[in-house]
Order: sequence, then C-alpha cells, then structure tokens
Amino acid sequence: MTTADLDPMLAARLKRTADGLVPVIVQEATTDAVLMLAWMDDEALRRTLDSGQATYWSRSRQSYWVKGETSGHRQAVREVRLDCDGDTILLKVDQTGAACHTGTTTCFDADLIWEQR
Amino acid sequence: MTTADLDPMLAARLKRTADGLVPVIVQEATTDAVLMLAWMDDEALRRTLDSGQATYWSRSRQSYWVKGETSGHRQAVREVRLDCDGDTILLKVDQTGAACHTGTTTCFDADLIWEQR
Repeated sequence: MTTADLDPMLAARLKRTADGLVPVIVQEATTDAVLMLAWMDDEALRRTLDSGQATYWSRSRQSYWVKGETSGHRQAVREVRLDCDGDTILLKVDQTGAACHTGTTTCFDADLIWEQR
Repeated sequence: MTTADLDPMLAARLKRTADGLVPVIVQEATTDAVLMLAWMDDEALRRTLDSGQATYWSRSRQSYWVKGETSGHRQAVREVRLDCDGDTILLKVDQTGAACHTGTTTCFDADLIWEQR
C-alpha cells in the first residue's frame, strides 16, 4: 500500500485502521439503498477517483478488486464523501445489477435480525 | 466485552474485528440518508436491542455510548439488519435532531471530495 499517488491533501485527511484501511459505505445514488460495506486503502481510493469505477481492497483475498469486474455488476461512482472525522467514506454509485454476491439487490436484504414492533 | 447476554444464536453469526467490534451503518429510516458509521461489540448490540435506543462502543473513549444521551439527539431504532457475511450491521433509525456532533444532519454533509462531472 502506498500513498504516493493519491492527492497528498486528501491523503492527509484520511484516518486509517492499523491495516491502513478506511471503511466505505456504498449507497445507491438513485434509490438511496445502502448496498454494502467495503474497504479502501489509499491506492484503491486513487484508482476509484481516476477511473470512476468503485475499486476496493479485499481483506480476504488481500488484493485490489474492481467491483463487478467478474460479475458485470459494476458501480459507477457519482459522489465520494468523507465523514466529519475522516475515518469513513460514503460512496454514492449507480449500481448495475445486484450489489451482493448472493444475487440480492443489497447485502442487507436477507437478514433482518430485529424490528420495532 | 462479553457475549454472555446477547442471544447466542445471533452472537454466533457475527464476525468481529480483532477488537471484537462490528461496524454499524446508521441510516435514517424516513429520509434514507446515511447518517454515520459507528461500532458495536456484543454488549452494545444487546443494549440496543433491549432498549430500542442506538448504543455504540466508542473506540476513542473506550466506553459505551447511548447516542444522544448528552445532546438529546437520540436514535430510536426501527430495524437492525446483518449483511451477507455477518460482519456489518445496518441500523435504520428515527433520528432526533442532528446526527453529527458538528451540528450537521449527517456526518457526511460537509466534505464532498469528488463528484462525477
């Protein structure tokens, strides 16, 4: 992981985990549905900003991952926002197809564990 | 931190960080705005489910934190969802007042770092 190619002004504002990562909340720009949580290091963010295609760091595979590169279920980025303390990114995207690898629209569709009665 | 009081069936499905935490995406139930990212351990989740009031683990203060206990800007929980791999929680809440400690509606309002042109 390197910060060499990300805008240094932006890199200076990021607060990363011990692994050098920032959590990324991914929200559908049209429906406002929360699609998934992913992770970026500086290089993933640089690739995302340069390409306009959501690119994450896969913690399980320890590699970069252009969302939808295999499945076709890409995320075209509309907005990138940083939170008030610089430790979380909000990505607003146009999602093609299902966001979740299970085939559901979002990664949160299948598992409602509690609701207000 | 203890898992003693959280439903063991639910506790078994959570995948936690090395610190025993799960990231929580907080979304306003009416507007669908993403308000903030917070963290829960098992006990914070148990307290949230028991009280219906969003309760987090503060990593900076290393203590439990009922959102809005001081400010009055509480979060009444409507839904709790778990993602497909059990490592992220989505909380849908009725937010009273500003979600962000800076006074803005969400923690992502102030800092747009990139947008599609």
